[in-house]
Amino acid sequence: MWLWDKLIGKPLASYESEGQKIGIWSGLPILGLDGLSSAAYGPEAALAILLPLGGLGLNYISPIMGIIIAVLAIVYFSYRQTISAYPNGGGSYTVARENLGDNAGLLAASALMLDYILNVAVGISAGVGALVSAIPLLLPYTLPLCLVVLTIVTLINLRGVRDTGLAFAAPTYLFVGTLLIAITIGLFKTLINGGHPEAVISPPPLQTPTIAMAGLWLLLRAFASGCTAMTGVEAVSNAVGAFAPPAIPNAKRTLTAIVAILAILLAGVAYLAQAYHIGAMDETQNGYQTILSQLVAAVAGRGVFYYITLSSIIVVLALSANTSFADFPRLARLLANDHYLPQSFSLRGRRLVYTMGILFLAAVAGLLLIVFRGITDALIPLFAVGAFLAFTMSQAGMVVHWHRDGGKHATTSLMINGVGAIATGTAVIIMLIAKFADGAWITILIIPSLLLLFKIIKHYYDDVGRQIRSTHGLDLAHVGPPIAVVPIDWWNVLNESALRFALQLTSDVVAVHVMVDEEHCADLQRSWSQNVIQPIQASHLPEPKLAILPSPYRLFQKPFLEYVLKLEKENPNRIVAVVVPELVQTHWYQYLLHNQRAAALKEILLRKGNRRIVVINLPWYLDA
Amino acid sequence: MWLWDKLIGKPLASYESEGQKIGIWSGLPILGLDGLSSAAYGPEAALAILLPLGGLGLNYISPIMGIIIAVLAIVYFSYRQTISAYPNGGGSYTVARENLGDNAGLLAASALMLDYILNVAVGISAGVGALVSAIPLLLPYTLPLCLVVLTIVTLINLRGVRDTGLAFAAPTYLFVGTLLIAITIGLFKTLINGGHPEAVISPPPLQTPTIAMAGLWLLLRAFASGCTAMTGVEAVSNAVGAFAPPAIPNAKRTLTAIVAILAILLAGVAYLAQAYHIGAMDETQNGYQTILSQLVAAVAGRGVFYYITLSSIIVVLALSANTSFADFPRLARLLANDHYLPQSFSLRGRRLVYTMGILFLAAVAGLLLIVFRGITDALIPLFAVGAFLAFTMSQAGMVVHWHRDGGKHATTSLMINGVGAIATGTAVIIMLIAKFADGAWITILIIPSLLLLFKIIKHYYDDVGRQIRSTHGLDLAHVGPPIAVVPIDWWNVLNESALRFALQLTSDVVAVHVMVDEEHCADLQRSWSQNVIQPIQASHLPEPKLAILPSPYRLFQKPFLEYVLKLEKENPNRIVAVVVPELVQTHWYQYLLHNQRAAALKEILLRKGNRRIVVINLPWYLDA
Repeated sequence: MWLWDKLIGKPLASYESEGQKIGIWSGLPILGLDGLSSAAYGPEAALAILLPLGGLGLNYISPIMGIIIAVLAIVYFSYRQTISAYPNGGGSYTVARENLGDNAGLLAASALMLDYILNVAVGISAGVGALVSAIPLLLPYTLPLCLVVLTIVTLINLRGVRDTGLAFAAPTYLFVGTLLIAITIGLFKTLINGGHPEAVISPPPLQTPTIAMAGLWLLLRAFASGCTAMTGVEAVSNAVGAFAPPAIPNAKRTLTAIVAILAILLAGVAYLAQAYHIGAMDETQNGYQTILSQLVAAVAGRGVFYYITLSSIIVVLALSANTSFADFPRLARLLANDHYLPQSFSLRGRRLVYTMGILFLAAVAGLLLIVFRGITDALIPLFAVGAFLAFTMSQAGMVVHWHRDGGKHATTSLMINGVGAIATGTAVIIMLIAKFADGAWITILIIPSLLLLFKIIKHYYDDVGRQIRSTHGLDLAHVGPPIAVVPIDWWNVLNESALRFALQLTSDVVAVHVMVDEEHCADLQRSWSQNVIQPIQASHLPEPKLAILPSPYRLFQKPFLEYVLKLEKENPNRIVAVVVPELVQTHWYQYLLHNQRAAALKEILLRKGNRRIVVINLPWYLDA
Repeated sequence: MWLWDKLIGKPLASYESEGQKIGIWSGLPILGLDGLSSAAYGPEAALAILLPLGGLGLNYISPIMGIIIAVLAIVYFSYRQTISAYPNGGGSYTVARENLGDNAGLLAASALMLDYILNVAVGISAGVGALVSAIPLLLPYTLPLCLVVLTIVTLINLRGVRDTGLAFAAPTYLFVGTLLIAITIGLFKTLINGGHPEAVISPPPLQTPTIAMAGLWLLLRAFASGCTAMTGVEAVSNAVGAFAPPAIPNAKRTLTAIVAILAILLAGVAYLAQAYHIGAMDETQNGYQTILSQLVAAVAGRGVFYYITLSSIIVVLALSANTSFADFPRLARLLANDHYLPQSFSLRGRRLVYTMGILFLAAVAGLLLIVFRGITDALIPLFAVGAFLAFTMSQAGMVVHWHRDGGKHATTSLMINGVGAIATGTAVIIMLIAKFADGAWITILIIPSLLLLFKIIKHYYDDVGRQIRSTHGLDLAHVGPPIAVVPIDWWNVLNESALRFALQLTSDVVAVHVMVDEEHCADLQRSWSQNVIQPIQASHLPEPKLAILPSPYRLFQKPFLEYVLKLEKENPNRIVAVVVPELVQTHWYQYLLHNQRAAALKEILLRKGNRRIVVINLPWYLDA
């Protein structure tokens, strides 16, 4: 427990939850890491598709990133509106469910959950991948490194929201700061050199084009890949409740900060890549460098600044998983509250976070990392489809919301969300088509399966709820007194206390002896009349019966259970209370030295019994 | 269960035990395999020690075997007397304990148990060793073959005594028959050739002597090794109760048959070895043959008869373990009856055998086989010490018995057992000295450790027995009515049935709600007054209380347990009955979908509770 206290921190009381609320400065690292880290791979993903065009590809990157930033802006305005409209947290699940119905909500939830899980595996894998390509010595340790990062992120999140913000602030702001500085220097150099800056370290020459012109298919694929830059934008809207008051402005400002920084980074990278003639390189070739590595080297050379910037990129990539850890448990909790997931997902643990969701996410992501041995390239095509599907459901939901609402600015708001829905919906379709053969088809199988699972769970809980719901007050009529049954093997203090309790409970007591040995049984009968019947008659109490059950096959449980079931059947309006005396075992060796008859009897009565068979356990503790 | 029925057989009722009793013909394979199979290794073990004498060694084998047969005869007459004196089974443990005291009995029991365990491992290992040396192809499978034999012997013994006799009769009688035939032919040939028979296949020439004369030390070691031929003789006296009536004559006749056959085999082998000039061969050399292999080949050539005889030797060696399986569980049962072992050793299983003893013996022997990879040569020096120690204790006990008895033939009987005690006691000392350095010293550690363990177990049971013994009849005074505590989370049929039962039990009922959520708690309070208090007041029953326990750290068990313990402390003369409603889970997936709160609560109340805290479990079963 001491170690656990150190690792996770001391328990937090429920009334301390205000202290766990976040502001803009902590919200950015907690909720923004996924979105911001996209700047490190979004442009690269688009340029990688344009690789066959060689230098010509650079002409397309600015328009493609322009479109992506435009979609980002639309999504941004849409989510601002969502935050205002759903101050308790307007995740895609809530918005879609309330406006489009349960199935739409579950579709959005399934899509998001898949994306959150993938984000953890892919993010950690990308960060560790960047690290091992910088230090090839670590290559054999890829999977252990991934699991170490996963464990650290999991433990920090289990420590609570506040500690997460503190832990991740430094790398986040270092990442944002160094990249912004690099872009500023690059833009400045480009400007004073009339758009043709001299690179400090020239980027490797671009590949010779293998095709002369970009076809529509290539451009669509580049767009679809570049869209990964936008994942994580929904996180803030889902977590409005986590912000300190005033929650809505704080959430909006955090969203603004994340989107603005992301947009600047994307635009800057795209523009400077063109200016410095930087293209994607073939990852499988020796001397491979990422776009950002080439860019920072071209702008500022390979000095201390280069290494700080590149390190912060690696750390932020590895930690981008954190957005999932912030949002997945909240989403799971909403689903659990609506009975689509087990109730344990809705319980806040010792540090006021939804422990079960965090552990579940860590377990599934860890499993993916282990299965793919820490290299999750195969999972990337599956990624982002879920996020965009959730965006679309959410925007569409907001359109219906404004339509119903009909307030002052409803029309404008409806327009904004409508454009958002169309833009993100188009993006989903493009992504699905462009990446279908690469694996996006798997999402089409997984998302409905998850949806179905949620509905099955809900159906089960509804059924249980219906069965145990009490539609009336306490019913005190039609209840006969219980019949007490006490198994007895020999007269000792255990049996005595059981019998005494049974006599307090009812005047209808049967002691039951399963007879394996006739001599022993005769001894017991003598003991019974002397130790039980005599004192009972002296006190003028109703006499308990002693029932002897023959057991030719030397079994105990079976004849006893049959007797109890028969008694229950013969007395349809009464409860049969089996009073089981038990010698409590507190040391391991006692398990070897005693039979487990009491425990086995309790278990079999629970398994094979029914509502009118009650087990009363009278424990007996040994001294020392 | 179907497979188990096939493997073990259908359960036998206690009244069927007469049908499981054995006669002479089945007693010989069940109880005699250990003793009879000794003929295959006893003379060999003695001759192996005489190896350095070369051909000269043969001059000593007849006198040594003569002494061994004389000791065997003494032991035989002693055990005949034991059988008469202890018709319920006069194993060394019983005889030593009744006449020499508990410690002597336990010493005999410890020694015998060790020997029984070793006998299983060594016997199976010897049989499989003979098999793989005949078919070297099987050499890599030595351990698996040993474990297969162990499993077969275990399963047959679990099927019951009768089936064991049936299964082992054929190989036993084949072994006895073929060896007797071989010896008869050999003796006949020797006689008609004036003591110098012509071998059909000449045995390999004897080794050149490395020493010219046998010293006392060598002869003692040869005697000590040859004594292994006598192990297993005590088996019958231990199992008199297993014989069909008249039990004593049947047991005596079986003992006579075993000892007579063994004596003939030992004498015949020793005499013919000398006549045919057959000596032990170095086991580590190529072309190694056992004495019996050489003997049968010399007498009858290597035809069909040779292969049948040698096969039956292999089978009987492997099955010699069976004597341990017949006697170890009986001995363990006697110890368990006297509280020196857990009671489970005294229960008869579905086939009327002491299942626990059989399984325990199989497990320990299997472990030994696994640890020694199926080759138990290192264990052989430990072997037989235990058996002879037990013989000695038993004989000495009989001396005391006759001394006390003072009947008609008491003096003669005393003399016979006295000679037996001295002979076997001398043999123990010789064995210990001769084989001390080879490993016999280990027995001096193990036997007292076992004895100590038995005494510790007995001490524990005595302590428990003293604590739970009831020295008085049912005490009905000084008992206040119980207080019932019902945990309540929400008003549903589970809580309703729990509360109803609690109200039947006592007029002092407290429903306890652990408050994690204040709103939920307020709802519950409203529901309480409407669903419980109103009907209660209408019925003019005593009103149950609703206690609210705040839980700032969102824990359930801890505050609840503390409340119950406090209540118990405040009411020193009353029982606190905690009524736990439980949704019984009958499908595996329900364990994922429900919290295990009821089970956990029952467990924690049992662990941390005390004698005045009683758990009442009200189960609720879902339809379908």
